[in-house]
Amino acid sequence: MPVTVSDAERMVDWKTRKVAPGPSDLAAAARRLRGVAVRTPLAPAASLSREMGRPVFVKAEVLQRTGSFKFRGAYNRIAALTDEERARGVVAFSSGNHAQGVAAAAAQFGCSAAIVMPSDAPIGKIAGTRSFGAEVVFYDREHESRETIAAELAETRGAVLIPSFDDPHVIAGQATVGLEIAEDVAARGLVLDAVVTPVGGGGLASGIALALEVAVPAARLYGAEPEGFDDAARSFTAGRIVGNTRKSGSVQDALLTPELSDLTFGILKSRISGMGQVPDGAAEAAVRYAAREFKLVAEPGGAAGLAAVLAGIVPEGAGAVAIVLSGGNS
Amino acid sequence: MPVTVSDAERMVDWKTRKVAPGPSDLAAAARRLRGVAVRTPLAPAASLSREMGRPVFVKAEVLQRTGSFKFRGAYNRIAALTDEERARGVVAFSSGNHAQGVAAAAAQFGCSAAIVMPSDAPIGKIAGTRSFGAEVVFYDREHESRETIAAELAETRGAVLIPSFDDPHVIAGQATVGLEIAEDVAARGLVLDAVVTPVGGGGLASGIALALEVAVPAARLYGAEPEGFDDAARSFTAGRIVGNTRKSGSVQDALLTPELSDLTFGILKSRISGMGQVPDGAAEAAVRYAAREFKLVAEPGGAAGLAAVLAGIVPEGAGAVAIVLSGGNS
Repeated sequence: MPVTVSDAERMVDWKTRKVAPGPSDLAAAARRLRGVAVRTPLAPAASLSREMGRPVFVKAEVLQRTGSFKFRGAYNRIAALTDEERARGVVAFSSGNHAQGVAAAAAQFGCSAAIVMPSDAPIGKIAGTRSFGAEVVFYDREHESRETIAAELAETRGAVLIPSFDDPHVIAGQATVGLEIAEDVAARGLVLDAVVTPVGGGGLASGIALALEVAVPAARLYGAEPEGFDDAARSFTAGRIVGNTRKSGSVQDALLTPELSDLTFGILKSRISGMGQVPDGAAEAAVRYAAREFKLVAEPGGAAGLAAVLAGIVPEGAGAVAIVLSGGNS
Repeated sequence: MPVTVSDAERMVDWKTRKVAPGPSDLAAAARRLRGVAVRTPLAPAASLSREMGRPVFVKAEVLQRTGSFKFRGAYNRIAALTDEERARGVVAFSSGNHAQGVAAAAAQFGCSAAIVMPSDAPIGKIAGTRSFGAEVVFYDREHESRETIAAELAETRGAVLIPSFDDPHVIAGQATVGLEIAEDVAARGLVLDAVVTPVGGGGLASGIALALEVAVPAARLYGAEPEGFDDAARSFTAGRIVGNTRKSGSVQDALLTPELSDLTFGILKSRISGMGQVPDGAAEAAVRYAAREFKLVAEPGGAAGLAAVLAGIVPEGAGAVAIVLSGGNS
């Protein structure tokens, strides 16, 4: 039974329960990010195009601010806060790309950010996060919970937690990757047939799925996740969210999320055409391929979509294929 | 005594004696390359901008077709041939970036290309050149002259030799790098103060110098060449072309040209504000810096300008600085 939800109710919804962003939310995110996020190039992949006999492109999101797409969602989330909320600052937990994305986005708004990071995080990532003026709060992976520490920080300071994927504003921000791909392929006079993206918590994939639905409904979306951490594929097969049993142990660390959220699972389950499971060796080979053929530095998780394409995830066809290189911090 | 040269005379001149391309030649090159060459991004260099207290950008020419700027000049040179000349094919000698640039440009015109390469050239570069359909003609570095072999090929086949830098059309093609930098900096509402580029034979530097003269006359140009192979710096000091004594022995192999030509020396001598001598270790550190901070793969010679900036070649100021990352094939 269809239910009509008014805009007002919908906005209230977002505070309490999470719903997928709509076309106007995506358009608003695109407006907010214009001139703030890097409009990353959609670079022709000459050798892959020859091999596949169709136009293949790489969405070079490694060239985004902070070296990954995460800046987009974080910025769009912080932009949606009230001035009062922003004055109290933001909190996030992440040992990687989301940490730097939130730190950089907060800096754009002149808003303080506290990032909860493991005390054994790589020095480069800690320095990267601090370089945007963020406060880094360490926790002990063995004995402390980052969720609890972040929640306490948020509670004490009245700061807003910026989730890494389970949030409509974050997803609308990541959707701009999909909107840009659609625009740039159309500007070349081509028809977009397929997009292939890495999948961790599903924020980026969800955003792209919604963007394609708006801009190129006939285009298909494929996802790639690490072999042994194929919770998304198993969830789509089972028709319900299934988690990973292992929590670590892959070089594709950017994609090691325990499980999808209700929101990302709900968006993706009917919108994804296939999932690839990428062995670490294939992800590392894709990193080398990206360096040699595209002159782009990708991290293994960021190259998982490329690895899946090299392994043949996209069925034969004539339309354009876009591969998202989602991050390059390793 | 000023001499007025008519357009017709000028065009004849180009066949016999080499003169610098003028503003209309640069504009024509830009028109020819539109939609053919990649309009490479001018990416913000966040950390360098913070450190230098001014906007710093990277012109990511490693993302150009074939992984270096060389495609631009080669394409513009071949475009200037008559149909009849193109039907006889082109010849070039190079063990590196120019080889692939000429091969790819010739393929665009459906024109055959023979590239003279040393028999001990890296397999990847040979394969890269062949991948564009070019014929690779090997020579023995110890006992044969590539110039002689290329000249014989040109003679026998009636093919036109495409020089790697000593040619007005080639320089006009490389000038589009400078035109794009000028446009993109202006589009951001900034004033371009300095461009820093690697210097080998001086084709790219000459093109950028002429582009700046047209588009941003107040901007200064700095060059970088390998330490121990600082023929350009010594030539500018001496007021005449001085060659390198050593011919090899630097990881910055893309820049190991014996000497500038009359044409590039003539263009650059009054237009370059300073030259940096880059030790191999500094070039390699710049390659690592580019990977970490820009997520771009550069070769040591292609990162020489970045190395010079990191070493402080640009005097203090407030205007924008653009660093050309000229190639990424290694």
